[in-house]
Amino acid sequence: MTTRLHGIFTPNLVPLTARGDVDELKLADYVNWLIDRGVHGLYPNGSVGEFVRFSLEERRRIAKVVCGTCAARGVPVMVGATEAHTRDILASCDLYASFGARAISLLPPIYFKLSSESLYAYFAEVARSAPIDITLYNIPLFATPIDVPLLMRVASEFPRIIGIKDSSGDVAHLARMINAVKPRRPDFVFFSGWEAALVPQLLLGADGGVHATSNVLPELTRMMYDHFRAGRMNEAVKLQLRLMEFFDLMLSGGADFPDGVRVGAELRGHDLGKSRQPITEKQQVDRKKLATMMQCVMSEFGVVDAPVGGCALREPKGTIDVAHDVEVQRVTEAVVASLKARGLVE
Amino acid sequence: MTTRLHGIFTPNLVPLTARGDVDELKLADYVNWLIDRGVHGLYPNGSVGEFVRFSLEERRRIAKVVCGTCAARGVPVMVGATEAHTRDILASCDLYASFGARAISLLPPIYFKLSSESLYAYFAEVARSAPIDITLYNIPLFATPIDVPLLMRVASEFPRIIGIKDSSGDVAHLARMINAVKPRRPDFVFFSGWEAALVPQLLLGADGGVHATSNVLPELTRMMYDHFRAGRMNEAVKLQLRLMEFFDLMLSGGADFPDGVRVGAELRGHDLGKSRQPITEKQQVDRKKLATMMQCVMSEFGVVDAPVGGCALREPKGTIDVAHDVEVQRVTEAVVASLKARGLVE
Amino acid sequence: MTTRLHGIFTPNLVPLTARGDVDELKLADYVNWLIDRGVHGLYPNGSVGEFVRFSLEERRRIAKVVCGTCAARGVPVMVGATEAHTRDILASCDLYASFGARAISLLPPIYFKLSSESLYAYFAEVARSAPIDITLYNIPLFATPIDVPLLMRVASEFPRIIGIKDSSGDVAHLARMINAVKPRRPDFVFFSGWEAALVPQLLLGADGGVHATSNVLPELTRMMYDHFRAGRMNEAVKLQLRLMEFFDLMLSGGADFPDGVRVGAELRGHDLGKSRQPITEKQQVDRKKLATMMQCVMSEFGVVDAPVGGCALREPKGTIDVAHDVEVQRVTEAVVASLKARGLVE
Amino acid sequence: MTTRLHGIFTPNLVPLTARGDVDELKLADYVNWLIDRGVHGLYPNGSVGEFVRFSLEERRRIAKVVCGTCAARGVPVMVGATEAHTRDILASCDLYASFGARAISLLPPIYFKLSSESLYAYFAEVARSAPIDITLYNIPLFATPIDVPLLMRVASEFPRIIGIKDSSGDVAHLARMINAVKPRRPDFVFFSGWEAALVPQLLLGADGGVHATSNVLPELTRMMYDHFRAGRMNEAVKLQLRLMEFFDLMLSGGADFPDGVRVGAELRGHDLGKSRQPITEKQQVDRKKLATMMQCVMSEFGVVDAPVGGCALREPKGTIDVAHDVEVQRVTEAVVASLKARGLVE
Repeated sequence: MTTRLHGIFTPNLVPLTARGDVDELKLADYVNWLIDRGVHGLYPNGSVGEFVRFSLEERRRIAKVVCGTCAARGVPVMVGATEAHTRDILASCDLYASFGARAISLLPPIYFKLSSESLYAYFAEVARSAPIDITLYNIPLFATPIDVPLLMRVASEFPRIIGIKDSSGDVAHLARMINAVKPRRPDFVFFSGWEAALVPQLLLGADGGVHATSNVLPELTRMMYDHFRAGRMNEAVKLQLRLMEFFDLMLSGGADFPDGVRVGAELRGHDLGKSRQPITEKQQVDRKKLATMMQCVMSEFGVVDAPVGGCALREPKGTIDVAHDVEVQRVTEAVVASLKARGLVE
Repeated sequence: MTTRLHGIFTPNLVPLTARGDVDELKLADYVNWLIDRGVHGLYPNGSVGEFVRFSLEERRRIAKVVCGTCAARGVPVMVGATEAHTRDILASCDLYASFGARAISLLPPIYFKLSSESLYAYFAEVARSAPIDITLYNIPLFATPIDVPLLMRVASEFPRIIGIKDSSGDVAHLARMINAVKPRRPDFVFFSGWEAALVPQLLLGADGGVHATSNVLPELTRMMYDHFRAGRMNEAVKLQLRLMEFFDLMLSGGADFPDGVRVGAELRGHDLGKSRQPITEKQQVDRKKLATMMQCVMSEFGVVDAPVGGCALREPKGTIDVAHDVEVQRVTEAVVASLKARGLVE
Repeated sequence: MTTRLHGIFTPNLVPLTARGDVDELKLADYVNWLIDRGVHGLYPNGSVGEFVRFSLEERRRIAKVVCGTCAARGVPVMVGATEAHTRDILASCDLYASFGARAISLLPPIYFKLSSESLYAYFAEVARSAPIDITLYNIPLFATPIDVPLLMRVASEFPRIIGIKDSSGDVAHLARMINAVKPRRPDFVFFSGWEAALVPQLLLGADGGVHATSNVLPELTRMMYDHFRAGRMNEAVKLQLRLMEFFDLMLSGGADFPDGVRVGAELRGHDLGKSRQPITEKQQVDRKKLATMMQCVMSEFGVVDAPVGGCALREPKGTIDVAHDVEVQRVTEAVVASLKARGLVE
Repeated sequence: MTTRLHGIFTPNLVPLTARGDVDELKLADYVNWLIDRGVHGLYPNGSVGEFVRFSLEERRRIAKVVCGTCAARGVPVMVGATEAHTRDILASCDLYASFGARAISLLPPIYFKLSSESLYAYFAEVARSAPIDITLYNIPLFATPIDVPLLMRVASEFPRIIGIKDSSGDVAHLARMINAVKPRRPDFVFFSGWEAALVPQLLLGADGGVHATSNVLPELTRMMYDHFRAGRMNEAVKLQLRLMEFFDLMLSGGADFPDGVRVGAELRGHDLGKSRQPITEKQQVDRKKLATMMQCVMSEFGVVDAPVGGCALREPKGTIDVAHDVEVQRVTEAVVASLKARGLVE
């Protein structure tokens, strides 16, 4: 009998070779490194895993490597199975079941915005035929949101749909989903996908979290979770606040999300190669600055040494320089560009 | 010496006479009723108090009645002092200080969207001259958001600015503000203004909450807060989830927010008169339905009797009717209206 | 008999005295200046007129001055009559009718977001009793949007509601409103409130525009309108593109909207005093830079001289410096602020 | 020498076989039907073409069929070449050049939100190596927006980038792009991708439109374009307003976008098979209603007969039933679902 899904799942990064292909050996090593440091499970082909930047065949190879490595360690896997065509999703489900995955993770179809009725039709088509459990994946930032009535509808009808990962960032939304679904489906699992609010969501009843930072600081993420489960609220909150700061730092520069997570994993000693999203010279410089800042913070956590040259530890200054207004800036740049084109300003 | 602000503050409704004026006697009675049931403080001229629907003179009368009543009971008041012109705000500050208010509450200027630099100029102008403490009020749904660097900037420069009420609904935003401000201003107070997430926000370090539902169920709101402070997390979360359900119900019909809160207070026996926002026949019917549903739920909480005729307690049905897609509906109605106007469809 | 409303209406700025009060003499002079330069009508107490920053009494004084001045010149006025309480709106309607206003302009209630049903109740309450024609004002940026079915509903029921000013910026929305309302109410007038798209909206059937730039360049705005009505499309479009560039420049710096419009009017020789929105030192510096840039462009239009020192007219450079990503910047600043507070980075 | 791209390009639908595969013969027939009715070019693998629901191999087959058919007729093709990996995009570019495509169309990478700097890096990587001209595709509804400074930057640096299709719906955005880019790149082409505003955008300087409705009513779309180019503004606007109504109707029901376009093409006699997005019973019923309404309107245009049973042509009724507020409805459904689950209401 399978135990209820719970704990910290890592939406793992994917190492690439110099040629830009998936580096399967390094991927297996990386997964083992994560398991050694306490993560409860893996979540390959998620957003941090840049699933959209791979082909169907590559996603299946990634799934095979991660599932195989985890099987050998007795660790559960929820594997992203989103594809353009439900026919391909169902074929992946067969495959991932054969790889020993505990469940698939399924996004709403990407790109288009769909009605709840269309999402229902889509989830239903997969849930009716899949030979493996399904967890839904709500991430309104990137795909059509899954609302409470839809979740209630599919949870009521399809036993194969066993849980949801909520990356909405809206703690109340998680609470509303729990309120609506738990009375009828006490087995349903809820995962947080918004690590800036993991502990509050655990408090409300989440079973665990899919946690980008666990790619980089798996020990601390696990420690935070264990503090919470043991009722050591103060310690859990303290770590939450510190890890949120670190998470914000990871997202604050270099190239775009999830590149900062790659920077973090590289600082832990993993050679991941270049992401498939090209970057500019300017971004490479920003990335180096970010690496130094991150190393400073990580050295505080004791997982890496401080950078050569040390970290500044000055007194905080009196005034913080405040962000210029963003809308104004955009319009300014547009108009200045236009004036320049006409030679009206230098 | 004043104690640190904390606990449940009620953003109190305002009773109106048959002529539509502020009913000062009923307002005093209502405030006493709330205090008797355990709220820690009052927050007049907030959003639930419909401050924008009163004149400057009326807001000052409301403040006088609430402050006077609370002073007699030893209960602190944070009173909304937002006006169109900073000159008027400063005059209100003088007045509210003389009424014995503990602090004012100050929104960003309403209507326009402003840059952080403009918000800074505005808060600074008030903070430099106000003879009373100031709590900021962040409510991105209705007014320009207050971001973390701005909060840090004004908290660093102005001792008169002593706290913030955050109604963003973004738990991580509260955590970020706490992370940024507390190291330098440990005295700074943080109030939740998003009651669907009060307990999670208390966990992260909020001192209390400004809580619409405490207008209706002050006993339960207080009980939830006390459970939390006593470390009875399970009980606190249980009440949180039930009160969120009730809050959602209050917001789900009748007229618009905050009319449902008025419905609730009426069910507790308060005659509040009609809001200044006119409503249609259809809305009056919806309002009655809402009252019955709310009475059913409130009778469960033991604060009112069940409605005559009782409440349905059937078995949950198999399928929930799902929301139609909203964008589609809007466009449909627009095009159908247009086709009707041309007589092309019936 | 009144003629159909049409043409360019100026949402006029309000000059203030050194003490910060409405300068009624200068206001009358300014209105006369605008009329002399060809605007078809005035639109006092609009957004550019910063109506929210005045008291009810001040708004009524402004209306009196503008209506009185325009009456003497035979120029129509649509005057903003939005107040917190419908009782006050109706009293303003009586007054503005007695001042000789052609119509009032009415926003949805500000601050709260309301349902279409509540907007209907509100518009209906005013439309049933007002002794003056009403034009609605749709500005989704700042107030609840007016959708097509609602417009159709009130246009069908209330002859007093005679038009709408649409500041949504959505050209297709204007087209949808025209499609829905014109077959039944051919008298209904449509004004553009989005000057970056005035000519395209005229082409679709708008009767005119409420036009911030006409505060500054009334001659050119009028010329653009006349070109269009005379069928000189190329000339109209050419001016549209140039004026849009100027409008963007006005909005691109200094303090926030509508401060740039004040800068422009000052360059034309009007002493408007300080806005009630306070600004910082930094904003004062930005405002000066903006004034120089605007003077350069305005001198091209021949309405002012070039600034002392002249305007740069270099060859356009090869590469434009591109906006840094905004979300990243916000989070960066938040996290850096937080790290500074802890002394972790300098 | 190639002529400047202009006119109406059809983002063509893709017929599927009963097995759900691309029906190449029908696709060629459909393209010929479109060309026969006057479209100036084809735009395969666009959003209406549901490019995300096909595999890389299928997209290449679709491109081959469309390019081949068009080559035989002397009609230009802009073909969507967006893939997950730039390596694959460049391979597609080689292929599409060999198929005789006039240009590719390139979206920002889908799913993630990227900074302008990252978009630059991405466009640059393709533009440096592509053996074929590139038109960018701005569709903020579904992918990261392309802002004016970014467009100016890539237009300045890469001659291979020759134009943009703007589906932002923001007429002023198109005008800003034209203002910024034309002075330096007079050859740059601008296509409207927002057919509700095609004529206004042509007026501002757009060279043509990529037009979903031209899948269904190619004759009328062409007629509208020809009216405009011949200076028959009234006729062009009249058709614009009627086609917008039809477009809204296509989008108003059935399943989600672009299913209504399929409904329309089926009414013109094309058997397209089932879309890959599954639909429910309820959606099938809605789809039938939509087909009847569309047939009524299309019969007015004279392209199909009226449906059996005829179309209602009643007098417009006095009152339109107005949309219930959407937010309220969502919360209501969530809370009612939750109360039902607890058996508290029936």
